[in-house]
Amino acid sequence: MDRIPILQLGENLLVSIQVDMHDQLALTLQDDLATMIVNKGARGVLIDISALDLVDSFIGRVLGNIAATARVLDARTVIVGMRPAVAITLVELGVTWQHMRSALNIELGMALLRADMEDASTALTDTHRAG
Amino acid sequence: MDRIPILQLGENLLVSIQVDMHDQLALTLQDDLATMIVNKGARGVLIDISALDLVDSFIGRVLGNIAATARVLDARTVIVGMRPAVAITLVELGVTWQHMRSALNIELGMALLRADMEDASTALTDTHRAG
Repeated sequence: MDRIPILQLGENLLVSIQVDMHDQLALTLQDDLATMIVNKGARGVLIDISALDLVDSFIGRVLGNIAATARVLDARTVIVGMRPAVAITLVELGVTWQHMRSALNIELGMALLRADMEDASTALTDTHRAG
Repeated sequence: MDRIPILQLGENLLVSIQVDMHDQLALTLQDDLATMIVNKGARGVLIDISALDLVDSFIGRVLGNIAATARVLDARTVIVGMRPAVAITLVELGVTWQHMRSALNIELGMALLRADMEDASTALTDTHRAG
């Protein structure tokens, strides 16, 4: 496998990570996601890691970078399906994500992204009114 | 990897196949999908194969079996993201799917499943009226 597929769901992109990401695969994913956010005008990215038993500090850092890249392109990232053991490992490894939020499943993740977009459009209207 | 994750999107289930399915993985997927259709009351199954360069007759048969199992449980199956070369190979292999339809991408696949459900509910109303 040379790349992880990215699926489009309306304004959001969905990535289901099922394999251990080696260096090149992680970089390709980051590239592909950035390209798709720009080309499709995506506002949100959902990353499902329910298939991962283990997340090491390399994958932790890659996921953080993906979220940071998305943020620069004005898209929000939500990670879903994290197993309890993975959450504990991430805390133990000291991995912190500035631009990533977490939701239990895809549906809750999409709700989170929708709420974000509504907040953003309200803020835009308020700015418009104030001006 | 011991199983392919199944994601829930409203009334539908989404499976993104990214690895070559050996025997056990295929059987586990068929089992897991049947269980999830029953437990979650899913009406549709979307199978994304955009990551597959190659579909051999074994995978072709497995996908057909998955769709047939779903059909017995009153769920429809749509395959999405098939590459042109895969389509040609399937025809050359003589693989035919009785219970599977195809759509170019997830969004069109979901529209197909939605249309099915509307047809089904109309048919139900008509039967009710006739009775």
